[in-house]
Amino acid sequence: MSAGDDDAPPVAGPLREPEPTRRRTPAEEARTLVAAGSLGSLSTLTAEGAPWGSLVAYGQLGDGSPVLLVSTLAEHGRNLRRDGRASLLVAESVQAGDPLDAGRVTLAGRAERPAGAAEQAARAAFLSAVETARDYVGFGDFALYVLRVDRVRWVGGYGRMDSPAAVDYRAAAPDPVAAVAPSAVRHLNADHGDALLAMAREPAGFTDAIAARCRGADRYGLDLWVTTPRGSGPARVGFAEPVREAGGLRAATVALARRARAEAE
Amino acid sequence: MSAGDDDAPPVAGPLREPEPTRRRTPAEEARTLVAAGSLGSLSTLTAEGAPWGSLVAYGQLGDGSPVLLVSTLAEHGRNLRRDGRASLLVAESVQAGDPLDAGRVTLAGRAERPAGAAEQAARAAFLSAVETARDYVGFGDFALYVLRVDRVRWVGGYGRMDSPAAVDYRAAAPDPVAAVAPSAVRHLNADHGDALLAMAREPAGFTDAIAARCRGADRYGLDLWVTTPRGSGPARVGFAEPVREAGGLRAATVALARRARAEAE
Repeated sequence: MSAGDDDAPPVAGPLREPEPTRRRTPAEEARTLVAAGSLGSLSTLTAEGAPWGSLVAYGQLGDGSPVLLVSTLAEHGRNLRRDGRASLLVAESVQAGDPLDAGRVTLAGRAERPAGAAEQAARAAFLSAVETARDYVGFGDFALYVLRVDRVRWVGGYGRMDSPAAVDYRAAAPDPVAAVAPSAVRHLNADHGDALLAMAREPAGFTDAIAARCRGADRYGLDLWVTTPRGSGPARVGFAEPVREAGGLRAATVALARRARAEAE
Repeated sequence: MSAGDDDAPPVAGPLREPEPTRRRTPAEEARTLVAAGSLGSLSTLTAEGAPWGSLVAYGQLGDGSPVLLVSTLAEHGRNLRRDGRASLLVAESVQAGDPLDAGRVTLAGRAERPAGAAEQAARAAFLSAVETARDYVGFGDFALYVLRVDRVRWVGGYGRMDSPAAVDYRAAAPDPVAAVAPSAVRHLNADHGDALLAMAREPAGFTDAIAARCRGADRYGLDLWVTTPRGSGPARVGFAEPVREAGGLRAATVALARRARAEAE
């Protein structure tokens, strides 16, 4: 939707320069999305070198490298033993809306059998993600693999995409507030419309805002949708410091609301 | 769960030979699952011959061949232009439970650009599945592909899997009742426990059944879970004729219940 659409309401921008804000980097987006899931589509190579897709569960090491536990009897297990080149596609789970507008990440590289301490770490990482695997992780026909990622492709939805360097992917931290963000957003919209309105007016610069809804929360701030007499539009407000753990989102949001109200006085 | 599990209730079987029943073939399972979706994971080959996974929407021709509309600017678009070998993984959408116990199908083969009448058919098939593509299907940087399937792998969940021949996949019909089955099952369990109990006692041979719940419905019959004083167990009851359209499931179920009650008298 753009301001030029015939039947769309006008899109309004801020009346005053908003305070600068940060967003998650593409590497952080990719790490966050992979950290949120435990199920992906694995692409491997058949004996003829043709691509083969299969559904797999995955865990992950501290640097975001996926850990797989594959049956050597399964096609993808035989494929990996012959040629470790593989890619893992992880898609955001979507309840409603256009699924092609949802996030997904492709991690490509080489799957390797870990040994010694690395195998213990990989096993622990897999079991932490897939608890039911405890029943079969020790079976002789199952093999642990770590996908050594050398390419990352992140798609956040229509028009939001990037290819962060693998080294940046490994160094980035998943967003600690991702899991609690949806319930925080619901709570803000249900009970704190006044605080959101104050944020829209002050740090976000929509000085004539008459209403504001929260559309997303992450470690760096909130995404708002602001209504004004001129139309409505998106706004971004930032926390003073990035939130470092899930439990910190509430305090950061309260502090942001307090600052917004203070600026308004 | 087996009868030998220490803390599991005993699994009971029928006391009398149940009437023979049919189930969907693996080819029908695969066609049904692919027909139910419009989103899959496409595996293609990079310039180096490595596997690359990406999320795609798909439509399908009358023989179950997937139709893709890919941007030639996207990695998978460039990959297909260079080498048409591809596989499409379609997974059942799961709301709860173990996702590795859910159904999925891998279709592998060669993606080809259709021409002439075949292109019109492919375009119509894609648009019928992905209506929003009407906005960009004609753009010069989008290309239609038909995946000519030569291998099919179906996994129905733990321990249920098969590799139907591609020719059988193309010839099989998707189950017409798949889309309405969940609501039919809920309705049967909510309002027709007596009919389910009659089916469990008579065609299914659990003559001492004291309760029965429906766990699934398809064109060939119903899956039940039957409770008896000896324990509980699975049962299958079949319709007199396969159901040929979604609207026929109700009549087939009513007829089955009537027959079960008549046999009991």
